[in-house]
Amino acid sequence: MEKGTPALGWAARDESGLLSPYSFSRRARKDEDVTIKVLFCGICHTDLHIAKNEWGNALYPIVPGHEIVGVVTDVGPGVKSFKVGDTVGVGYFVDSCRSCGTCSKGYENYCSTLVLTSNGVDYDGATTQGGFSDVLVVNQDYVLRVPESLSLAGAAPLLCAGVTVYSPMMQYGLNAPGKHLGVVGLGGLGHMAVKFGKAFGMTVTVISSSPRKREEALERLGADAFLVSQDAEQMKAAAGTMDGIIDTVSAGHPLVPLLELMKPMGQMVVVGAPSEPLALPAYAIIGGGKRLAGNGVGSVRDCQAMLDFAGKHGITADVEVVKMDYVNTAVERLEKNDVRYRFVIDVAGSQLGAAA
Amino acid sequence: MEKGTPALGWAARDESGLLSPYSFSRRARKDEDVTIKVLFCGICHTDLHIAKNEWGNALYPIVPGHEIVGVVTDVGPGVKSFKVGDTVGVGYFVDSCRSCGTCSKGYENYCSTLVLTSNGVDYDGATTQGGFSDVLVVNQDYVLRVPESLSLAGAAPLLCAGVTVYSPMMQYGLNAPGKHLGVVGLGGLGHMAVKFGKAFGMTVTVISSSPRKREEALERLGADAFLVSQDAEQMKAAAGTMDGIIDTVSAGHPLVPLLELMKPMGQMVVVGAPSEPLALPAYAIIGGGKRLAGNGVGSVRDCQAMLDFAGKHGITADVEVVKMDYVNTAVERLEKNDVRYRFVIDVAGSQLGAAA
Repeated sequence: MEKGTPALGWAARDESGLLSPYSFSRRARKDEDVTIKVLFCGICHTDLHIAKNEWGNALYPIVPGHEIVGVVTDVGPGVKSFKVGDTVGVGYFVDSCRSCGTCSKGYENYCSTLVLTSNGVDYDGATTQGGFSDVLVVNQDYVLRVPESLSLAGAAPLLCAGVTVYSPMMQYGLNAPGKHLGVVGLGGLGHMAVKFGKAFGMTVTVISSSPRKREEALERLGADAFLVSQDAEQMKAAAGTMDGIIDTVSAGHPLVPLLELMKPMGQMVVVGAPSEPLALPAYAIIGGGKRLAGNGVGSVRDCQAMLDFAGKHGITADVEVVKMDYVNTAVERLEKNDVRYRFVIDVAGSQLGAAA
Repeated sequence: MEKGTPALGWAARDESGLLSPYSFSRRARKDEDVTIKVLFCGICHTDLHIAKNEWGNALYPIVPGHEIVGVVTDVGPGVKSFKVGDTVGVGYFVDSCRSCGTCSKGYENYCSTLVLTSNGVDYDGATTQGGFSDVLVVNQDYVLRVPESLSLAGAAPLLCAGVTVYSPMMQYGLNAPGKHLGVVGLGGLGHMAVKFGKAFGMTVTVISSSPRKREEALERLGADAFLVSQDAEQMKAAAGTMDGIIDTVSAGHPLVPLLELMKPMGQMVVVGAPSEPLALPAYAIIGGGKRLAGNGVGSVRDCQAMLDFAGKHGITADVEVVKMDYVNTAVERLEKNDVRYRFVIDVAGSQLGAAA
């Protein structure tokens, strides 16, 4: 057997979720693999849930991270699209079956045997390890080109947060100039939806439970309007005005006041995942023929289109760049939503330390 | 002011919902109006809710009925598409604003000032009265052509139950040969969905809480498979197989087992309206990018297309034809779902009796 690629990262060992240095081995580069030196990696809420085994599927030790930007350091002989020195990205998944119904339609993000970038199981049985590490080895078809014009730290969150909102905006026609988009919740996902909506030429209204986010939404992010979700009068005045809504809120919240904001046949997309079920009265969608859809990240094709679009329009996430030795503090702050809007680890600029 | 058209129908006078003879006046025929002698009128659950003021919006006296088939007896000079003697239908609404966003897009069924056929308020301020009566006067643009090849009693329920399932099947691509459709609930709406699904060349599975409906579904209606919704094993075996689901159930029921029946990106359409909110866990739609939409009847265009399609394929509702003096008993039986699958009143063949 060929020798693997030695890697150094930070891993969670148990349900405390605390990360510490971890030495491991990547698979030996195959003919169609790209070897990537990790530069930056975003911290997503999912990393936190997985590292603490909140979803009951943790495969410790876990090296989190699926918002990865890096540089190509080696390519296999079968690699056509990438060469050493290219700036690339890796997102939520690193392989799929390539033959099922959804893979065939180009929505491999919904493949039932999708190989997640971190805490996944690869087709060879190995547990996958994510981007909180110095090196990745990934099949070329799951590697994205990252426009070099972008801030690479700010580009990292595009690989998950960005595509999670961009993909449904494209699928459901929420990308047309003049249309009115509602963005519920102004966090990692929400602030990306505002930026894409404005770049598409849409009217964008942010709906938030925090009145203190008004200035941020309007002045920093360029939203056109701001609604406090608990202000029934404000909400009523905006009823029936929106073509669609991206709901990014991961805490429980009422759907009906949001559905009422939409025009007939309006499309709501749910990308936040509250732990309790949402209450959906049938009348709230029957009367106006309204639509609701879940969305999980996006396809490789959508992700590449999103990165190209972001490059053209200079769109990146607003990030707080930290070193790896700050990661446990960053996770604590993330749990309190104390970040505008995404932590990104400067992996290449960090001392990854000696393995414990 | 021109003299109105005298009409005789059966009306509910109060929250008992009991119907009895009622003399009233239709508006004087306008230039673009069609006068219709009512032949048959279906009894829909909505009639029952409205007549008993269960939705709190009753405008007594109420002549119910919005699944109407009749014959043209007079047309105004501006009427182009209909002539005396034509077999026509009238559905859930008789006018709309013609200028709002949804009217402009041809979905006048979602117009916010839609004029309902019964218990509605017309643009002249008059309360509308439905098809449990001998004559209607309706603007030509809201009158449908009914194929004469169809049983007219069986065609009446197409005007509401039929279009309510046909319209979303067209909108959401649940009309393609080879696709797999789930139909939840086998009543007035459900049995129409099975018939349309089979006529589209789809594989149709009926999902019901009543095992006793199996034979009916498979042998009488030609469904391909039958699942008992409480049989977790059966449901599990069918998981991930359906392209879409039409959910016609108006009693509370769990959504998750139904969503699990669908392939990734599958489309559920909710046409039944349980009084309690449905519980929708976000994970159940995020993972597979699944979709949920409400639907309320259909546009005039969809309704006409549905009638033409039904004519071509010989599709009608399975009905129990009754006389008007049986209507109160029929309503009682309908409340117990004791009908396969729709009561239709033989209005022209009934003694409408003297007004009380």
